Amino acid sequence: MLKKYVYFFGNGKAEGNAKMKNTLGGKGANLAEMTSLGISVPPGFTISAEVCNHYYKHSEKYPDGLKEEVEKNLSELEETSQKKFGDVENPLLVSVRSGAAISMPGMMDTILNLGLNDKSVVGLAKLTDNERFAYDAYRRFIQMFGDVALGIEHKKFEQEIEAIKEKHDIELDTDMTINDLKELVERYKELYKREGKEFPQDPLKQLWVAIDAVFGSWMNKRAVDYRRLNKIPEDALLGTAVSVVSMVFGNMGNNSGTGVAFTRDPSTGEKLRYGEFLRNAQGEDVVAGIRTPESLEGLKKVSEEAYNELFKIFDVLENHYRDMQDVEFTVERGKLYMLQTRSAKRTAMAAVKVAIDMVDEKLITKEEAVMRVTPDHVDQLLHPMFDPHEKKRVIEENKLIAKGLPASPGAAAGKVVFSAKLAEEMGTNEPVVLVRPETSPEDVAGMVAAQGILTARGGRTSHAAVVARGMGKCAVVGCEAIDVDEESKEFHVANTSVKEGEWISIDGSTGEVFVGNIKTIKPKGLEGNLSTLLEWADEIRRLGIRTNADIPRDAKVARAFGAEGIGLCRTEHMFFQNDRIPAVREMIASETKEQREKALSKLLPIQKEDFKGLFRVMKGLPVTIRLIDPPLHEFLPKEEKAQKKLAVDLGISFDRVKEIVETLHEFNPMMGHRGCRLTITYPEIAVMQTKAIILASIELKKEENIEVIPEIMVPLVGHVNELKYVKNIITETADGLIEGSGVDLKYLVGTMIEVPRAAVTADQIAKEAEFFSFGTNDLTQMTFGFSRDDSGKFLKDYLDKGILKVDPFKTLDKDGVGALVKMAKEKGRSVKHDLQLGICGEHGGDPESIKTVDEIGLDYVSCSPYRVPIARLSAAQSALQLNQQK
Amino acid sequence: MLKKYVYFFGNGKAEGNAKMKNTLGGKGANLAEMTSLGISVPPGFTISAEVCNHYYKHSEKYPDGLKEEVEKNLSELEETSQKKFGDVENPLLVSVRSGAAISMPGMMDTILNLGLNDKSVVGLAKLTDNERFAYDAYRRFIQMFGDVALGIEHKKFEQEIEAIKEKHDIELDTDMTINDLKELVERYKELYKREGKEFPQDPLKQLWVAIDAVFGSWMNKRAVDYRRLNKIPEDALLGTAVSVVSMVFGNMGNNSGTGVAFTRDPSTGEKLRYGEFLRNAQGEDVVAGIRTPESLEGLKKVSEEAYNELFKIFDVLENHYRDMQDVEFTVERGKLYMLQTRSAKRTAMAAVKVAIDMVDEKLITKEEAVMRVTPDHVDQLLHPMFDPHEKKRVIEENKLIAKGLPASPGAAAGKVVFSAKLAEEMGTNEPVVLVRPETSPEDVAGMVAAQGILTARGGRTSHAAVVARGMGKCAVVGCEAIDVDEESKEFHVANTSVKEGEWISIDGSTGEVFVGNIKTIKPKGLEGNLSTLLEWADEIRRLGIRTNADIPRDAKVARAFGAEGIGLCRTEHMFFQNDRIPAVREMIASETKEQREKALSKLLPIQKEDFKGLFRVMKGLPVTIRLIDPPLHEFLPKEEKAQKKLAVDLGISFDRVKEIVETLHEFNPMMGHRGCRLTITYPEIAVMQTKAIILASIELKKEENIEVIPEIMVPLVGHVNELKYVKNIITETADGLIEGSGVDLKYLVGTMIEVPRAAVTADQIAKEAEFFSFGTNDLTQMTFGFSRDDSGKFLKDYLDKGILKVDPFKTLDKDGVGALVKMAKEKGRSVKHDLQLGICGEHGGDPESIKTVDEIGLDYVSCSPYRVPIARLSAAQSALQLNQQK
Repeated sequence: MLKKYVYFFGNGKAEGNAKMKNTLGGKGANLAEMTSLGISVPPGFTISAEVCNHYYKHSEKYPDGLKEEVEKNLSELEETSQKKFGDVENPLLVSVRSGAAISMPGMMDTILNLGLNDKSVVGLAKLTDNERFAYDAYRRFIQMFGDVALGIEHKKFEQEIEAIKEKHDIELDTDMTINDLKELVERYKELYKREGKEFPQDPLKQLWVAIDAVFGSWMNKRAVDYRRLNKIPEDALLGTAVSVVSMVFGNMGNNSGTGVAFTRDPSTGEKLRYGEFLRNAQGEDVVAGIRTPESLEGLKKVSEEAYNELFKIFDVLENHYRDMQDVEFTVERGKLYMLQTRSAKRTAMAAVKVAIDMVDEKLITKEEAVMRVTPDHVDQLLHPMFDPHEKKRVIEENKLIAKGLPASPGAAAGKVVFSAKLAEEMGTNEPVVLVRPETSPEDVAGMVAAQGILTARGGRTSHAAVVARGMGKCAVVGCEAIDVDEESKEFHVANTSVKEGEWISIDGSTGEVFVGNIKTIKPKGLEGNLSTLLEWADEIRRLGIRTNADIPRDAKVARAFGAEGIGLCRTEHMFFQNDRIPAVREMIASETKEQREKALSKLLPIQKEDFKGLFRVMKGLPVTIRLIDPPLHEFLPKEEKAQKKLAVDLGISFDRVKEIVETLHEFNPMMGHRGCRLTITYPEIAVMQTKAIILASIELKKEENIEVIPEIMVPLVGHVNELKYVKNIITETADGLIEGSGVDLKYLVGTMIEVPRAAVTADQIAKEAEFFSFGTNDLTQMTFGFSRDDSGKFLKDYLDKGILKVDPFKTLDKDGVGALVKMAKEKGRSVKHDLQLGICGEHGGDPESIKTVDEIGLDYVSCSPYRVPIARLSAAQSALQLNQQK
Repeated sequence: MLKKYVYFFGNGKAEGNAKMKNTLGGKGANLAEMTSLGISVPPGFTISAEVCNHYYKHSEKYPDGLKEEVEKNLSELEETSQKKFGDVENPLLVSVRSGAAISMPGMMDTILNLGLNDKSVVGLAKLTDNERFAYDAYRRFIQMFGDVALGIEHKKFEQEIEAIKEKHDIELDTDMTINDLKELVERYKELYKREGKEFPQDPLKQLWVAIDAVFGSWMNKRAVDYRRLNKIPEDALLGTAVSVVSMVFGNMGNNSGTGVAFTRDPSTGEKLRYGEFLRNAQGEDVVAGIRTPESLEGLKKVSEEAYNELFKIFDVLENHYRDMQDVEFTVERGKLYMLQTRSAKRTAMAAVKVAIDMVDEKLITKEEAVMRVTPDHVDQLLHPMFDPHEKKRVIEENKLIAKGLPASPGAAAGKVVFSAKLAEEMGTNEPVVLVRPETSPEDVAGMVAAQGILTARGGRTSHAAVVARGMGKCAVVGCEAIDVDEESKEFHVANTSVKEGEWISIDGSTGEVFVGNIKTIKPKGLEGNLSTLLEWADEIRRLGIRTNADIPRDAKVARAFGAEGIGLCRTEHMFFQNDRIPAVREMIASETKEQREKALSKLLPIQKEDFKGLFRVMKGLPVTIRLIDPPLHEFLPKEEKAQKKLAVDLGISFDRVKEIVETLHEFNPMMGHRGCRLTITYPEIAVMQTKAIILASIELKKEENIEVIPEIMVPLVGHVNELKYVKNIITETADGLIEGSGVDLKYLVGTMIEVPRAAVTADQIAKEAEFFSFGTNDLTQMTFGFSRDDSGKFLKDYLDKGILKVDPFKTLDKDGVGALVKMAKEKGRSVKHDLQLGICGEHGGDPESIKTVDEIGLDYVSCSPYRVPIARLSAAQSALQLNQQK
């Protein structure tokens, strides 16, 4: 038996349906579905995308029997429409359209009015009682067919029109007479000949040439490029389908017209009919934008019946598809035809409102509502955005000067400053954007004061990126195209220079950098509808959501966003503030254990208060505190001037300061003396930090009756003995304090899993750990051997050349890093079945990574405060998807 | 039934034997064995080390029944020796000795003459007919017992002697009269009382106090420290055994004496009786070194019978133990007693000769011979060593000033120079040692010219270490104690300064740094015996042995040492030579692909000739060539002066050079833009290198009829797509050239596995690779997250604190890195069963790592030329050990 390749629809019956998008394309599938729903759709048939697949697999041959099948369907179409292809009395005209499962620019779009020839044009004239209309349609068809199907340059057709207009001294196309149009038809035929082509008079031949053209367009450069750029693998789709639909005409006079509409307002989500209508026009006129369309009320004036039917259809479609629809329709002499329906694109605000409303309307379940909103939608609602009109304008004005990595979402405009200090000074009075080669902890105060941060170097997990995300502040990083000249206080990009004080605007969601001041729109925040939706998400998700927060301000934001604990408190971030950095530096400069302990004793009360602040905010929720992690050189000033001052402050020689800096210099600090390696060399630091944590907990319990669940986390463990050694210091210190306090305090000791060896030997490590928290930034770094601060240089090439599909610092690499996480989970749980498992890398806020982590079976994700709402949604979506897979 | 804890030996029968070292200690086991062999050994018994184990597991209590068992054995001993403990006529005297399975300083050594008391001393006097001897023995016993068993300070006993000598105006101890000695005995007893102790008159009580003392000494500080420093885990041994042996006296007159002997010469291995003999003396006199011993011929003069018997015993022992023995013996009144035998310590030269000779003598098999020589022995034979006497002298003179990492074995002395340039200049005329903070490729010529290299920074796999090993040149690296001041041309260590031009001596096998010029001994090289032994090793080993070599000179050395191919040729090392570095720099400074290709075209003929040189040496053997690996900045000069010159050379501005250097700067270059990442960005480099490899192969085949098996290796692959991309460039380039040449050339394309992700996804990568070569330097680095250049700082702490047992850059970490290698092997072979697997990291030359690799089942190891002989031996030993385990 031959395989079925062609699917007919018409007269209320269809062989296809909406689920067959893969074979019929979105357009064909929905035309079939609407037909079956009894909606008025012009009849037609769709040639399956499997034909396209066969075509390319068999050196551009069609499968056996296709010709016969198409012709059979054509006969059926003639019968249904009671017209005949090429007929001089009552000709059948069709449109031929391409359409794949997902919308894809670059392929051949549409040929209208196919079936016209020297005979049938006469029939059309009779049928419409409008000879001018018929010849205009004919010459348009010849032109479109030549251009789209045969590749004759569009402008050559235009030249013929110009020639006629010149000859007859006409100004507008519409001023051409019937005879002019007839002459144009002849001139077009001549043009074909000059180009070595022939205009086929046989409509069947026309049809096959058009079908060839559609399938041929699947592999044209634009389409291939589009798939490459959008990371659609060549084998993800079968190819394109071809829909052949009988023509209806919206330009048959004042009782005709055409329009597009949304079943709800795509900007706000309100349940308002929304659309545009153009009387006496065809679809292409709407697109061309020559005439300004009316609102849908215009349709009412043309035909109240059609108007009412359209709205009835809206209800039918929404009830059937259970989603907001975006439709195209045509009214031919008062009769409404639907030409397309699809799920409508919408803004973030609309997406949330529509989802919530449809649950209220009992159209969809809460679970479906949760699936309808994307993480990007949530992100948009939480950050400032550029006014889209303004942004469009500046792009047209060529003010987009560079593109970096979109490191922290949102939009910002401000005056360029090149130093954190100046940012602090100016930032209180006017908006500034801090532009740095890269940032370091010294720049944090300046980052707080700035509207946004732009760096020339560093990746998505660089200092600038991590800190900015923590603050919910817009940042573009690793913008290698810009060359920052701090001395002359300007940055260069290509031939442009931007001086300190000039305005720039940056988009942290796209990585774009503009010169000039683009207006931004304030975020909506976690208001009613979004809040409701996320509560539903909370009911669905299995994963816990914690936050990465170092200070009470961030912790508060995260709590308001729904965080259920702190998954990562980076204690060293506390060390950079002005009141404590001197003691930290004194500690680093110490030559003996005693000196070091003296300096640490100054830090103890400060750090204890820090922890009390955090614990108060997270009342009763777990707080994971990581012991000191970065290499010590990060706490020392880099500039000679500051180093000289430090020498004075510490009462030591400048030479000694230089010596310390020199000693602490490392070739590869990321793999150097940091993490638990520091506390192994200087156990007294772990003692101080443990004291601060435990004393803070005890005091809060005694004085304010606040429950604290501290989880003390040892970073950068690769060998169980490292954890054993540091854990011993922690428990000795903590147990002593707790015993003496008379308070019953539970605390956990666990480790980050961020070194590959830790994952490989997780069974050994689990014996000493009460929890694992996967530090997937470092784990990604070391598993790939990609320095996160340097990888910007080559990752771009990797993505461009398709070597990697996504930036592994953005989305967790499932095959490599994910496999290690899974291995660690399995090995860890094999030893300790209740081992608590979480992830605290930047991936904790990335939807796809959250799904990977959910699938692996960790207990929670922890992410920066502004990602918490996104994580809540993503975790719920992941749970629903995983459930479905089961 | 009670467990047996005490083992008797005497009268030609013994309950123990030589295999029971673990329970009887080395000494006890061999005394038993010799007894069974019919050799004259004083009778005695050994208390098992299991008692020691029980003692510490049960809060210092002995197992039930031990007391009775010891007393039973004591009775048997009395019977056998026909003497009685504490007897006034014929007293039994014993020595009490500790002894564990392995020799361990720090424990209680020996108590002699136990059993003497106020009564038995009279018996001894009668028995020996020498009252003075008896009382001298008595006072010595009281002294030793007080000191060793009861902890009374040694010097307090000396003070009593001094007091008597002063009182009687005597100068020498030997001038003391019998009465003096009797007085001394009384004074000693008084001393015991003053110290709150009592000297037990009951010999049985003496014995139990002595046994307590031996078991107590197992956990004393010195013994615990020794085990910690020598990485002997506390649970590796049961504890110490106690041997109680009846006394024989070498000091009973001129027909008595004592000696130590070797069955062959321990320095040369020649079959010469070798030893020392002291007439009328006890063992402690030999050790004390007061009198100069005679050769063994001295024994002949005392007793020809004993002399002949000793040599008969030598044969018995060698035939029985099938190894060279180190014995202690005593002659009491003409009768020979053997007090100890053990496998003799020997020099490298002796070890090899003895092994070979014993095979000739059919004493041992070739397999046993191969197990008898250690890799360290082989290493010693290949490198210069310090004259041991000279070295001892300078240590006594406190000239050992620092200790770094022993990075490349051998010894060197020379004048200090601080720059590679000066090393080149001076090095041709006189020996120099290059001292640098760290080395870089710019220093290579200076390293060639120097006798040795000393760096303040870097680990075992740092540039200095790797390059020095490749050259077989002595190097000490990461000597953090020294502070190199290049400006003032001196280095400081503690309070010492060493100026340029002063002599230092460094030992690359131990890491020691001395001031002054220590005489070195030239290495023997791969002469007769060693060569024979390694041929036997070759017959036994399963693993192939290749070498890491970049230039023909190294390749030749490696071939002479038995390498079976090149496992790693680092092409970039070729780039640093004077005739090519300009083109390399031109390539780096290129702004367009065309400029880059132009520069590369200059390198092509040079690199082609390089490969031809290597291929000629390795005729017909496989040569694995790694494409360019290091980050490009390594090829640029670091100093401003050189950068200015570069600007002139390249005809570009100094600013542009600075800009290039700045652009190439990386925070963590080890994880930066290097390895295949370079060829992905600049495919034209891979094209040039492939051309050079393939053209060299084709030309050699055509012009010189030399077979070449090039294996092209892509470095730093972490994702299969990286390999796919580069492989595609290689095969396109290579296949085109081969096709055009008319020559039939086979080549392989494979990858290094040095990034953890490559191991985790090895099944994916194996689809594109014909071989894997494990780059365990980088793999260790990234698996641990230890920068090999920076880890010196904390690894010392790790080793000192027992967190790591060995430096993972020296010995492959089995649990972590090894597990990844195993995973990669299994995953890789699951996809491609004949996938070729090797290791080319520095571990390839480390005996323990070779065993790990053999166990995992790789095909070959590749190591630096001077490690090839060691690897051959180690691979054979591994094969034998693994066979035995089966």
